Amino acid sequence: MSDDLFLSSDSARAAVPLTHAQTAVFDEPLALERSGELPSVTVVYETYGKLNADRSNAVLICHALSGDSHVAAHNPADTPGWWDIAVGPGKCIDTDRYFVLCPNVLGGCRGTTGPGSVNPATGRPWGQDFPTITVGDIVNVQRLLVERLGISRLLAVIGGSMGGHQALGWATRHSESVRGAIAVATSPRLTSQALAFDVVGRNAILRDANFRGGQYYDGGPIPAVGLAIARMLGHVTYLSREAMAQKFGANRLQPRQVATEFEKKFSVGSYLAYQGDKFVERFDANSYLALSMAMDLFDLGDTPEKLAASFAASRCRWLVLSFTSDWLFPPDQSRQMVHALLAGNKPVSYCNIDSSCGHDAFLLTEDLDRYGRLIGAFLENLNERGAAKAEAAKDDEDAGAQSPTSIFHPQRLDYERIVELLPESASVLDLGCGSGSLLKLLKDRGHAPLLGVELDERKILACVRRGLDVVQADLNEGLGQFADGQFDCVILSQTLQAVRDVERVLADMVRVGRRCVVSFPNFGYYKLRDMLYHDGRAPESPGVLHYKWYNSPNIRFLTVADFEDFCRDQGYTVHRRVCLDTEARAEVYDDPNRKADLAIFVVSR
Amino acid sequence: MSDDLFLSSDSARAAVPLTHAQTAVFDEPLALERSGELPSVTVVYETYGKLNADRSNAVLICHALSGDSHVAAHNPADTPGWWDIAVGPGKCIDTDRYFVLCPNVLGGCRGTTGPGSVNPATGRPWGQDFPTITVGDIVNVQRLLVERLGISRLLAVIGGSMGGHQALGWATRHSESVRGAIAVATSPRLTSQALAFDVVGRNAILRDANFRGGQYYDGGPIPAVGLAIARMLGHVTYLSREAMAQKFGANRLQPRQVATEFEKKFSVGSYLAYQGDKFVERFDANSYLALSMAMDLFDLGDTPEKLAASFAASRCRWLVLSFTSDWLFPPDQSRQMVHALLAGNKPVSYCNIDSSCGHDAFLLTEDLDRYGRLIGAFLENLNERGAAKAEAAKDDEDAGAQSPTSIFHPQRLDYERIVELLPESASVLDLGCGSGSLLKLLKDRGHAPLLGVELDERKILACVRRGLDVVQADLNEGLGQFADGQFDCVILSQTLQAVRDVERVLADMVRVGRRCVVSFPNFGYYKLRDMLYHDGRAPESPGVLHYKWYNSPNIRFLTVADFEDFCRDQGYTVHRRVCLDTEARAEVYDDPNRKADLAIFVVSR
Repeated sequence: MSDDLFLSSDSARAAVPLTHAQTAVFDEPLALERSGELPSVTVVYETYGKLNADRSNAVLICHALSGDSHVAAHNPADTPGWWDIAVGPGKCIDTDRYFVLCPNVLGGCRGTTGPGSVNPATGRPWGQDFPTITVGDIVNVQRLLVERLGISRLLAVIGGSMGGHQALGWATRHSESVRGAIAVATSPRLTSQALAFDVVGRNAILRDANFRGGQYYDGGPIPAVGLAIARMLGHVTYLSREAMAQKFGANRLQPRQVATEFEKKFSVGSYLAYQGDKFVERFDANSYLALSMAMDLFDLGDTPEKLAASFAASRCRWLVLSFTSDWLFPPDQSRQMVHALLAGNKPVSYCNIDSSCGHDAFLLTEDLDRYGRLIGAFLENLNERGAAKAEAAKDDEDAGAQSPTSIFHPQRLDYERIVELLPESASVLDLGCGSGSLLKLLKDRGHAPLLGVELDERKILACVRRGLDVVQADLNEGLGQFADGQFDCVILSQTLQAVRDVERVLADMVRVGRRCVVSFPNFGYYKLRDMLYHDGRAPESPGVLHYKWYNSPNIRFLTVADFEDFCRDQGYTVHRRVCLDTEARAEVYDDPNRKADLAIFVVSR
Repeated sequence: MSDDLFLSSDSARAAVPLTHAQTAVFDEPLALERSGELPSVTVVYETYGKLNADRSNAVLICHALSGDSHVAAHNPADTPGWWDIAVGPGKCIDTDRYFVLCPNVLGGCRGTTGPGSVNPATGRPWGQDFPTITVGDIVNVQRLLVERLGISRLLAVIGGSMGGHQALGWATRHSESVRGAIAVATSPRLTSQALAFDVVGRNAILRDANFRGGQYYDGGPIPAVGLAIARMLGHVTYLSREAMAQKFGANRLQPRQVATEFEKKFSVGSYLAYQGDKFVERFDANSYLALSMAMDLFDLGDTPEKLAASFAASRCRWLVLSFTSDWLFPPDQSRQMVHALLAGNKPVSYCNIDSSCGHDAFLLTEDLDRYGRLIGAFLENLNERGAAKAEAAKDDEDAGAQSPTSIFHPQRLDYERIVELLPESASVLDLGCGSGSLLKLLKDRGHAPLLGVELDERKILACVRRGLDVVQADLNEGLGQFADGQFDCVILSQTLQAVRDVERVLADMVRVGRRCVVSFPNFGYYKLRDMLYHDGRAPESPGVLHYKWYNSPNIRFLTVADFEDFCRDQGYTVHRRVCLDTEARAEVYDDPNRKADLAIFVVSR
């Protein structure tokens, strides 16, 4: 086993000297959320890049449970930071453009006030007398620091895991101070399973014979075994099952020879022993207890109603990212937050990044190309200047990014007709929005709010680059995240023929939109009829029907008449029907079921 | 929180007096697999039901890590057993019919020789001097007991989790002594993730200040904290995330008041504390170490080749069951075993039971209706008498169990034609076998071996009841589990039109079968052509095409000519083509692409 297996995640870092750290001291007492106060607070933090003249380019990065202020190296000679891959000149959080700020959290053990700090009332370390702190308290201390730096509004707050909880704290309760929130691999509250792991870890520390009520700062033995056990357990939950199989499957019985008193019969055992022992060297057990408890108490609600209430006051833009193999902060929890934001008409983009790396994915290079580019594109579009620049840069590359269901190249005739059918400035939900071409047209015409739904990760990135809001979802799972009548208009453009659960999708569309626009290729078009009737073969044609019967993404074949029957049977009102002969580029009025190859319907319930 | 939340799983049982336990002593030294020997072995076991005259009705039940010989109550006044729901008169493991035998495992702490037994060489308990034992050693001790009871061949061996490892041990290495093996929620070896959890648990015990090198039997303190931590951790892994959310989500901050020194701030914490404390009362830490290590060392191989070698000698029938939400012994591991058995042409049935209960599912009532009935049906068919009886009982209920893709009621004309097309006694793989009607026809005609592939759990049960071998799989994921030319014939009967990945499925079929029979509804049938051509509507007809365009399971529409083109393009040889007019019940020779509504092709590559 090579060293890099042992060092491939943030969590494996040893303690590093914080040579570039700065210190801010706040001498006023800090009232705590749950009860009590701290007589004063010291904050250790690091900064990268330059604050611009109007102080509008500050990005706050919130670290996770075991992180610290050293998010990145300050120069090539500096010790590595925990997110070097994402933070630096020219990187996705570009320190040539943004002023990056990363403070050590309240309750931590890397300089900011925590249980290892001296309690002025007793003259000895707080230990277990350190009051119970919350994510809200952590955020409040960060706000003191941001104010002292003269920043009235952050461009963005970014955090993953417990850092994501802090980002959520900012954006739900202090969103006037934040333009954009980026919540990565996080949750509105821990799952009961994740909470249970924390409980087991804390019990290992609290019941360690050397814990001594938390007063182990006397140079005597410390609760090293308990803390190491908690850390080992944490490690298992940060990795996915696939990632562990890859790391430890083949060489199961070949442990690395590490100096440890823990079991090292198996390769995974030697890894855990190493991680546990290393962690004890750099982290304080009381901080672990305080911060894991703050995380466990964090709770934006466990029902859609409570979540909606938590997000109601938010006024910032959102980017929510999860990872498919993250089982500690599972994607469904990110979706719960996205749904709550959508229910409140908040601007949000969401992507569940396909990854095998588990919860640690956001700290690893494997998927950086995807989450990093989404973060970078979202940041670029948070200020108007950036948005314009991004537009210009991306217009070229979008030229070739038409949806694969397009009939018309280079121009989507149906888009033009759909746009004409919409009331001026109507709000629009575009289902299967692709890379956002139609939404871009609508944005330029002043429609708002606009939201896209898309499944393909690359197309989501294209939308975010265009400054559009887009959430990843599978239409076949319905539109339960949207409220009745939430949009003036819901569009399903040339996607119906690929939908599995047609009744459900249409029923949800007419529920969510006051008007719905549905376009689809007409299987009753005479050329298609001829192919089956005269040639005895499954019809094919250019455009969306250019596939073979055996490899087509299209699974529903319907005629204009079929759709009219369907609307009648379902009790939907048809307001408009536009039938097109796209070869002739003309609308068809006579016998459209035979003569049109594309139909656009405007319906409602 | 009610008591039943604390007692809903086996693992929550307190120690019970084993009033019906019997004891067998083996005075000969027992050589151990890894090294060394035990000078003698005592086995504590319980039995239920009566051994029949020819000693052919014995069912061995193997318990999991924390179980014991008390698998079920012996009478209504007896204390409950750990699998009362499955074992007893009239239950799925019917003690009116079977002689059930359940011994406490070697290394355990409920009477059978283990680390708490006295080492005759020292006169004190073995403790950590107890030799490293394996699942193979556990099985060898069970074999001694079975022999002493005069049983030369078990009807079945059944086990879940670590009990499943024992069942695997019997059936891979001593299958001459077993007619049927039922492996539930188990694996060929632990995942690296599951192994990691075991390592953490063992470290908690080994580094407990009271462990004292394992010699804590002196009445002084015992490693209670370490054992409880290990148990808490185990508990989290036995439950699914959904199950934990259900148990502890709503009342997160309302712990039950239990007397414990562990953290009980959260409801899940009070549960874990309770489970941890209770376990310490009934289980020995050295046994926990010995048995979890035996489980961790169990390894039938981590590659298809090694697994195939492990299963090569097996001569018994197999039933493999997994549970969708089991993340400790995930379903993929059961599939690995099933694939290895299939690769060796072993008779196996497999079902992945849709459950939200996690690894513990096999001990809970929630899914008993499904796994219990499968176990019961499999047992019934292990002896000829039982099979005949089962057939008679089920014939009626199968009458209505035709596949929903049937065209013909009550008689499947295509089945008759397909049967005629097969060489006498050819081996057959039936893809999408439904409840086994075609396989039953083939079985009655002497075809062997026969295997069905099906997705629907209920249909799998119907097949198992008929004594057929059937494995659950999704055709769209391909047939990678089968070897080239493994079957004389592979059948895809009226399923092609519902297959997403047609090219892959067909390519796999011609790889696995020397001949392939494919039947499908002909979309070129004149009545269907007329509907589109004259009526301008998506065609519908009786049988498999009786759905509407928007709710049909059929997603591929092809004509006889289309399929011929496909075979030509793929380079497949068409050996026979039978086209039928099923209304006229006649074969069509003239212009079948127009006049036949059903086509049957025999192809190969």
